[in-house]
Amino acid sequence: MPGESEIIAKIRARTHPSGRVIVGVGDDAAILEPRQNRDLVACCDLSIEGVHFRLEWATPRMIGRKALAVTLSDVAAMGGAANFALVSVALAAGTKDELIDELFGGLFEEAEAFGVSIVGGDTSKSPGPLFIDTTVIGECASGAAVRRSSAAPGDIIFVTGSLGGSGLGLKLLESGYRLSEDQSTAEDSARRQAILRHLAPETRMAAGEGIGKLGLATAMIDISDGLSTDLGHILEESHCGAIVRADSIPIAECVKKLSSAEQERDPVSLALQSGEEYELLFTARPEMRPRVSELAVGIGLPITAIGEITREPGMRLLREGKESALTPSGYEHAF
Amino acid sequence: MPGESEIIAKIRARTHPSGRVIVGVGDDAAILEPRQNRDLVACCDLSIEGVHFRLEWATPRMIGRKALAVTLSDVAAMGGAANFALVSVALAAGTKDELIDELFGGLFEEAEAFGVSIVGGDTSKSPGPLFIDTTVIGECASGAAVRRSSAAPGDIIFVTGSLGGSGLGLKLLESGYRLSEDQSTAEDSARRQAILRHLAPETRMAAGEGIGKLGLATAMIDISDGLSTDLGHILEESHCGAIVRADSIPIAECVKKLSSAEQERDPVSLALQSGEEYELLFTARPEMRPRVSELAVGIGLPITAIGEITREPGMRLLREGKESALTPSGYEHAF
Repeated sequence: MPGESEIIAKIRARTHPSGRVIVGVGDDAAILEPRQNRDLVACCDLSIEGVHFRLEWATPRMIGRKALAVTLSDVAAMGGAANFALVSVALAAGTKDELIDELFGGLFEEAEAFGVSIVGGDTSKSPGPLFIDTTVIGECASGAAVRRSSAAPGDIIFVTGSLGGSGLGLKLLESGYRLSEDQSTAEDSARRQAILRHLAPETRMAAGEGIGKLGLATAMIDISDGLSTDLGHILEESHCGAIVRADSIPIAECVKKLSSAEQERDPVSLALQSGEEYELLFTARPEMRPRVSELAVGIGLPITAIGEITREPGMRLLREGKESALTPSGYEHAF
Repeated sequence: MPGESEIIAKIRARTHPSGRVIVGVGDDAAILEPRQNRDLVACCDLSIEGVHFRLEWATPRMIGRKALAVTLSDVAAMGGAANFALVSVALAAGTKDELIDELFGGLFEEAEAFGVSIVGGDTSKSPGPLFIDTTVIGECASGAAVRRSSAAPGDIIFVTGSLGGSGLGLKLLESGYRLSEDQSTAEDSARRQAILRHLAPETRMAAGEGIGKLGLATAMIDISDGLSTDLGHILEESHCGAIVRADSIPIAECVKKLSSAEQERDPVSLALQSGEEYELLFTARPEMRPRVSELAVGIGLPITAIGEITREPGMRLLREGKESALTPSGYEHAF
C-alpha cells in the first residue's frame, strides 16, 4: 500500500491544469479562474463502504465513478455546468495498490467524461471502511440556478429518462444476484441492465445544463431518494401540491421485462420509490412544453410529463381512473 | 440519534444566507456569488477518529473547530480569504445527540470566527469511526495566489507565531496527560498550553490574507507536517535550497518551560519536527522585510526571519556556529 505522498504524486501526474486551473493538485489549495457573470454551484457527497456501496457488488472503478457521479448530479439539478472536483479518500490499512489505482481511475474517468478537472483533495488511512467524499464546483449564469422552491400551480412535472431500474438493481444485488456478462436470456439481460443502472448511473449533465441555460424549469431536483420523496421535497419547498399520472411515469425497460416475469413486483410502485436513479425531476410552465421536447430531441434523452403542480397541498396519484394519496416512500439514511 | 433530515434541519436553521450565499443548505447544491476580478481558492481536509483525533482527548466542539480550521489554514497559505465551507460528516450508529450538536457547534463556531458561511455538506451513518471532511472555498485577487513554487535564492524565510507547542501537546496526550484546568504550577500551565495548541490551533487567516493582499511573499505553505518537512516542500517545488538558523526559530513558551524542566527534550528539534502547528511559513524578498514587520505589528502576531533561500539545493541548519544537513522529519500518514 503506497504512502500519501505516493498517491498524491500519482494523482498529480494524471491532472492536466487547463487554462482555468491556475494551481491544481500539489499545493495547499487549488486556484481556479471563475468566468465572468456566473454564479458558483458547490456541493459534496459521501460514499462509504457498507453504507453507499459494497466492494463485493461493484468494481473499484465503478465505485470511483459513482462517488463522483452522485455529486455531479447535484450540480445538474441546479441547472449548472460542472467544472472542478475535489476528492477525499480514506483507505483501510492493507488496501491493495490495484484497488487504489482502479478507484482513482474511476474518479478520473467520470471527471473526464464530463469535462471536469480534479483540482485537489485529501487522502488518509481509515481505521474503518473505505470513505470517499467528493466536492464539485460548477457554474451557472448569474441568477439562473434552478431551486426546489419555485414550482407553481399549473406547472407541468417532467422527468428525464426512465425510472425503477436502480431500485430493481439494488433489490437484485440484495437477493444475491451479481453483475454478470451472461445475457443468454432476456431476463439475464434485464437483470444486468438493472444492476448496471444501480452501480453505474448515467448522470444527466447535458439535460441539467440545457434546462438551466434555456430557463425551462421553475424547480428541479435529482432523483436520489426516489420520485415520490424527491417530488415531496419540491412541494415542501414550493408550498404546493401535485397530481401524478401513474400511466405516464416512464418505467425502465428492465423493470417492465422482469415485472412481467415475476408477478409480485409492481413497476409503478418501484418507479415511485426507487432511489439513486439520478434522473432529473423538474417543473415547467405549460408554455415551455415545446421547448422541453426540443431539448429532449437535441440531447437524445426522453423527457416525460408525468403530472401537474396543484394549489392544494399534498401528492395524489391518478391510477386507472382512481385518485389516491401518494406518500413519500423513498430512502433516508436511518441513524 | 437523529435522522439525516433532522440533522439537516438543524444545520439549516443555523445557516444565515448572506448577500453572497444565494442558495445555502437545503437544496441540491449551494449557489454562491463570486466577486469580480478574483480567483477561487478551493481545498478540503479529512479528519478521522483514530487517525486525526481521539474522542478521549478533545471535546466534540474542539474536534469540529479543528476539522474546519485545518482547511481554512490551507486557504490562508495561498494568501486567500475564506468565504464558504461545505461539511461532510459520517456518524457511527448510536452517536449521542449531544455529541452531534457539539461537533456541529464547533464547525459553526470556527466558521463564524472567520466570517465563513457553511453553505452545504452531506451526512451519513458510518459503519466505522467518526469521519469529517471539510471543503473551503475562498478568493484572492486575480493572479495573486501565493504558491509553493516561487521561492528564489536570497529570499528570507519567515514563520508566523511560535513552534513546537503542538508537537509537545501531542506527545503529552500520548503519554497520558489530558487537557486539565489545573494550572497550579508553571508546568501544569505549560502542559495545558501545549495540549490546547494541539487540540485547538489558531489558524492564521489574517496573516495569510494580509501577506496575499500586500504581495509580500514569493512562496508560502502552512506548517501541518512540521517546519523541516514543509520547508522541504517549498524547496522541492521551487528547486532551491535553504539555510535555517536554529537560534532564530521562535520556540513556543510552553516548550521552553517544559524543556528546561525535563532535560531530554531539545526544543529546536521539536520545533523543526512538530506538525499540525498551522503557522505560516513563507519566503519574501529581503526588501520586503520592513513591510513584513509592519504587517506583524498590524495583526498583533510575531513574524520571525529564520533563514534564507540558497541556490545550492538541500536544507542546512546553522546551530552554535556549526552547519549540518537538515532532513525533513515531520509527519506523513503511513498507510
